[in-house]
Amino acid sequence: MADGTSGIPDGYKDLVESKALAHIATIGPDGEPQNNPVWFGTQGDFIVFSQTTTRQKYKNLRHDERVAISIVDPANDYRYLELRGRVVRIDPDPDFAFIDSMALKYLGQEKYPWTQPGDERVVMVVAVEHTTQMGG
Amino acid sequence: MADGTSGIPDGYKDLVESKALAHIATIGPDGEPQNNPVWFGTQGDFIVFSQTTTRQKYKNLRHDERVAISIVDPANDYRYLELRGRVVRIDPDPDFAFIDSMALKYLGQEKYPWTQPGDERVVMVVAVEHTTQMGG
Repeated sequence: MADGTSGIPDGYKDLVESKALAHIATIGPDGEPQNNPVWFGTQGDFIVFSQTTTRQKYKNLRHDERVAISIVDPANDYRYLELRGRVVRIDPDPDFAFIDSMALKYLGQEKYPWTQPGDERVVMVVAVEHTTQMGG
Repeated sequence: MADGTSGIPDGYKDLVESKALAHIATIGPDGEPQNNPVWFGTQGDFIVFSQTTTRQKYKNLRHDERVAISIVDPANDYRYLELRGRVVRIDPDPDFAFIDSMALKYLGQEKYPWTQPGDERVVMVVAVEHTTQMGG
């Protein structure tokens, strides 16, 4: 891609559009890895996921924008994708439009059902710089 | 636990004994996160997984022993476990007994079928220091 990112590899678009979870590794306050599963989507060639601004992962990514995303095909354990990149933008989600779109993708519900009072949500936008894949 | 590690939380033993994959995040050469799925098992309260000694993950863990392991219940996306810890020992696997035990667990085969000529295998032994879980 002209902007220096590699995007999502051909042949894996179905995987990033599936209900597969993304295990997202970030760097914690002491330089240690942290890792947990999240819902995710795409915006063009970017990977996007929601965070509340009180979460450790959000704080980690404000401090070090590098991320490694591991995704396995729910239908085939031997087909996976690792995407490494950087959070290049953090967009506000004041009316919860993005988290609601994730609820639609993963739960088939129009509204995200688990919002807590005071939750502030943002959209983490990841540019993919390096990919590793297995299973075609 | 008396040795300062936290072990595997009660109520999640079935998950670590299941065929769930472990997404293992390590720190790469430039301090960046790396993340990919592996077969894993347990030895007492330790998490164990196989590596060939040419793999980047092995090199990463020789340099920085810290690891973050994300595991989702294959039967329930909302039940997951994050284990953070350190590789406290790297055991040789000269006769492939360990990787064969993983083939038995995940493939139901007594021999790991994908050994390449020249593969040298080791067992990475992880002491769990911190856990986060969701879904009981």
